[in-house]
Amino acid sequence: MPSYKAPTRDMKFVMQEVLGAGEQLAAIPFYKDNDTADFDLLSQVMDEAARFVETEIQPLNQIGDKEGCVRDDQGNVKTPTGFKAAYDKFRAAGWTALDADPEYGGQGMPHLISIAMNEMITSANVAWGMYPGLSHGAYSALHAVGSDELKKLYLPHIVDGSWTGTMCLTEPHAGTDLGIIRTKAQDNGDGTYAITGTKIFISAGEHDMAENIVHLVLARLEGSPAGTKGISLFLVPKFIPNADGSLGERNGVVCGSLEHKMGIHGNATAVLNFDGARGWLVGEVNKGMNHMFIMMNAARLGTGMQGLGLGEVAYQNALAYAKDRLQMRKEPRVSGEEADPIIAHPDVRRMLLTGKAYTEAGRALALWLALSIDTEHHHPDEAKRKEAGDMVALLTPIAKAFMTDNGFNVAVQSQQVFGGHGYIQEWGMEQFVRDARIGQIYEGTNGIQALDLLGRKVLMDGGKKLQKLAGTLQEFAEENEGDENIGDYVNQLGKAAQQLGSITMVIGQKAMSGEEGADEVNAAAVDYLRFFGHVVYGYLWARMAKIAHDQIAAGNDKDGFYLAKTQTAKFYFTKLFPETKALAATIKAGNEPLAVDDMAVFGWEHA
Amino acid sequence: MPSYKAPTRDMKFVMQEVLGAGEQLAAIPFYKDNDTADFDLLSQVMDEAARFVETEIQPLNQIGDKEGCVRDDQGNVKTPTGFKAAYDKFRAAGWTALDADPEYGGQGMPHLISIAMNEMITSANVAWGMYPGLSHGAYSALHAVGSDELKKLYLPHIVDGSWTGTMCLTEPHAGTDLGIIRTKAQDNGDGTYAITGTKIFISAGEHDMAENIVHLVLARLEGSPAGTKGISLFLVPKFIPNADGSLGERNGVVCGSLEHKMGIHGNATAVLNFDGARGWLVGEVNKGMNHMFIMMNAARLGTGMQGLGLGEVAYQNALAYAKDRLQMRKEPRVSGEEADPIIAHPDVRRMLLTGKAYTEAGRALALWLALSIDTEHHHPDEAKRKEAGDMVALLTPIAKAFMTDNGFNVAVQSQQVFGGHGYIQEWGMEQFVRDARIGQIYEGTNGIQALDLLGRKVLMDGGKKLQKLAGTLQEFAEENEGDENIGDYVNQLGKAAQQLGSITMVIGQKAMSGEEGADEVNAAAVDYLRFFGHVVYGYLWARMAKIAHDQIAAGNDKDGFYLAKTQTAKFYFTKLFPETKALAATIKAGNEPLAVDDMAVFGWEHA
Repeated sequence: MPSYKAPTRDMKFVMQEVLGAGEQLAAIPFYKDNDTADFDLLSQVMDEAARFVETEIQPLNQIGDKEGCVRDDQGNVKTPTGFKAAYDKFRAAGWTALDADPEYGGQGMPHLISIAMNEMITSANVAWGMYPGLSHGAYSALHAVGSDELKKLYLPHIVDGSWTGTMCLTEPHAGTDLGIIRTKAQDNGDGTYAITGTKIFISAGEHDMAENIVHLVLARLEGSPAGTKGISLFLVPKFIPNADGSLGERNGVVCGSLEHKMGIHGNATAVLNFDGARGWLVGEVNKGMNHMFIMMNAARLGTGMQGLGLGEVAYQNALAYAKDRLQMRKEPRVSGEEADPIIAHPDVRRMLLTGKAYTEAGRALALWLALSIDTEHHHPDEAKRKEAGDMVALLTPIAKAFMTDNGFNVAVQSQQVFGGHGYIQEWGMEQFVRDARIGQIYEGTNGIQALDLLGRKVLMDGGKKLQKLAGTLQEFAEENEGDENIGDYVNQLGKAAQQLGSITMVIGQKAMSGEEGADEVNAAAVDYLRFFGHVVYGYLWARMAKIAHDQIAAGNDKDGFYLAKTQTAKFYFTKLFPETKALAATIKAGNEPLAVDDMAVFGWEHA
Repeated sequence: MPSYKAPTRDMKFVMQEVLGAGEQLAAIPFYKDNDTADFDLLSQVMDEAARFVETEIQPLNQIGDKEGCVRDDQGNVKTPTGFKAAYDKFRAAGWTALDADPEYGGQGMPHLISIAMNEMITSANVAWGMYPGLSHGAYSALHAVGSDELKKLYLPHIVDGSWTGTMCLTEPHAGTDLGIIRTKAQDNGDGTYAITGTKIFISAGEHDMAENIVHLVLARLEGSPAGTKGISLFLVPKFIPNADGSLGERNGVVCGSLEHKMGIHGNATAVLNFDGARGWLVGEVNKGMNHMFIMMNAARLGTGMQGLGLGEVAYQNALAYAKDRLQMRKEPRVSGEEADPIIAHPDVRRMLLTGKAYTEAGRALALWLALSIDTEHHHPDEAKRKEAGDMVALLTPIAKAFMTDNGFNVAVQSQQVFGGHGYIQEWGMEQFVRDARIGQIYEGTNGIQALDLLGRKVLMDGGKKLQKLAGTLQEFAEENEGDENIGDYVNQLGKAAQQLGSITMVIGQKAMSGEEGADEVNAAAVDYLRFFGHVVYGYLWARMAKIAHDQIAAGNDKDGFYLAKTQTAKFYFTKLFPETKALAATIKAGNEPLAVDDMAVFGWEHA
């Protein structure tokens, strides 16, 4: 059975030594005033979170996979054994309220801490973690654009975890393309709306873990314009609450079936049928897409965390197995047994270091983003808020796609370390692979993330956000180009960053040149995001290596933590970062090789 | 539900136009005399095989995944619904005898045709295909080194499919490292041996599809030397046959349990307990490893075929979905619907073309290898046999590892084309991913294949086999460097081939320089195999493109088949082949980045 130990030491290293989180949070009155900026306190919270997750959540992971969720004839859904009990403890300990607004019962902790705990939960049990995870998305949207009335009625219950939330976007014919959804909203004339339609792929859509479920639903109000400009956001509770928050009548939303999935079996992925269900408008009419994106950005980082968390736990278990499994003899021998631990073999080390390098860089990116979100939401200086918000917008698609792609690949490589045993369910490695696969698909496929990055985040503002980041990198590179330890990394990084700029320019020019411009963006996007991801990870690895070398020089490396950082950085720059060479070539090749003859190559006949 | 259409047109193109199979087989008396060299006949056999596989085998694929195999308390195993009936038809139609020796009831067809059918079967239903597939391995070993008595008693039953075979190698503590197996053989003094021990991961190890099962078992004869030099190969039948071939008493080999696996659920992966089971020596005492390798090479190509077959069927279904699924609007629009087929979007085309390019090159490699095996086994000219055998030895690890890695990646990308629907079991795409994953692991992990290639096949003979292949490539490159159509490909290929040579030289020098030499080989192997694989695929794509351009120029491209070849070749060289740039860099980085501090990085304490 797999094991898990939360990497709190590394989390604290990133927060405090790389990001200077304590200082940054102290500059934000919201946290200062709530007494949630103190890093010692935050450290203790993380330690406690680790203990809870390791002992209460992780042991349920294989049970959840095996049992799955079961729906009865009435549409009620039973979650796997132990899921509800663990959730009750989770609520009772206040974890659902961690980074929520104190006005609604929250603890007002930074998002930084919530994201760290998020990583732990997804490592331990991603299917379980999606129940509170989806609630967090619903909380964010409602908190941002809901009316005071809705907020007062719903938020305290979501914050204390007695009610959970969902995001109802997808329909059978409409996934990426939300502009063509058919779910309808009719004005009841009493401040409520009748919602009718079918939503699919609704994570945590129906279950027995909470008293009530608050669905946030995209629907088209009668008479609204076609496309994304005619979509509104509605709140549809499973049970309609009375004014005092007690539960009233059952609403007209029913779970029609549960999907049979490749993984995340412990999470109920529901088909929800809305049959004139009573709904309340959230935010403004026809602004549903904008409002939903409040949730989507959080959900995208949350999905990226699944890649990180599953990569981490897969790596941990591969590492343990590699030290334990004796197979073949190394020269010189490293054990007195009939064979040596496979960790002695370079190719096994390559697989392990791939996991370590991607995971630790991903953690740095995630925590950097989380701290930026805290700054964006609460910093008193508007310019700082804007700057942080731009960085969040730019880096979110990278966090989602690059982290889930790497997480899946790390899970696959970690499974490979187990040889044949990796294919056997009892060892748990194949579950990590199956569970990790969905992260590349949902909350906008990674192809869509790439288009969001290149089309919307980079080209649409004329490269301003990119230039801002490039400036930061440039500055760091200039400061360190002569450094004896990281000078070589910084030079590689500087070249790649320059190349990113010139690649962007070329695509930007192509994009504006006539009809095929959009195709050039579409053709380049996925490779572009991967290239960009390496530039970001390279920057973070160079920074981490610099700090580690300084600590070693100062005689502070008692347990080898900093030595490990410097050696993992070297692995990253010599064995993973060179992927950029291939990507530069494939991006440069552009759309032409894809513009093949439709009939000859694909047998596709069209107008 | 997924569909499948055997790509017989492409198979015939490779066989006849690329490899000149008809002419080559006609030069081999064994086929000429058996009337199995005629390409028209072989074409008809392929068409009939396609019909059989599409209608009888493919419809059972999802059933097999869902039902799996079930073991009762006595150790009997029931295969999924329909598996036995399909196998009975398969036998009755003579397919188990296809390329077997006419002396034992075989049809004496070339291995070329058997490999083509192998691809079809793995596309249709890989779990089902493993039952006859394993029999083929047992047939090969027994045919090559068994005594006349054993051959006469067993081979006719294996050839007519009434008995199936297995390969019993792995034990709980010994997978890659067969030198440490513990299964024992004691001489009974009557020409038989008592076999005792436990074997795991035995594919098709116990089932209800055939009357008898012939286990080929690696065991250590009492008093034999330690390590691989003390291992012998034994034949252990489930039922001990009487001299007339009728079934006698039940032997002491029992299925102790079935593994719960990530995929290939329809195949029974058994733990087999041998308790003094009666066995017969196959070949010579203590030569078991050599004899087993007769099976292993066939099994490795067979495993490579799983990558090819699953890549092909995943690609076919992604292509169909991409034409059907309407999502987002393309400029200019390509349909009158509210959205356009997603195949119009360049990034979707990129995913599809990746599948097409890897699959068609893999098919060319597989059929080239199969024809080389026919030459190796039956050509009257010893020099030709030797030359073909060398090529088979060199290319087999590439076929196994490169084809299964690409097959898995193609399955994953094809699943991605489906968006969220790809994660749902009913669509069948996630089964392809799960089924494809094992190919990278079993029959020697792909890491082991890479060591076999670089260490044994390339370096151990001083690069002679490699130079032979490089000479072929060089000749082709020189002939075509000025070609207006493929000149650019040929130049890329020539450079990469030269680079492969110089990389090999550098690693070879490192390998001989002291204690860490073996580590340098181990560190480079996986990237080296991938680089080599691209050189081989590049060569095949350039050859296919040349033929296709010639046919187009001659006005022979009525249906666009050749145009598709030329455009897919271009995609390969511009979008996939550039991976070699990254691989060259990571190979060059060598072992140093992997030689990290064991305690600091991995927490691994050792002598």
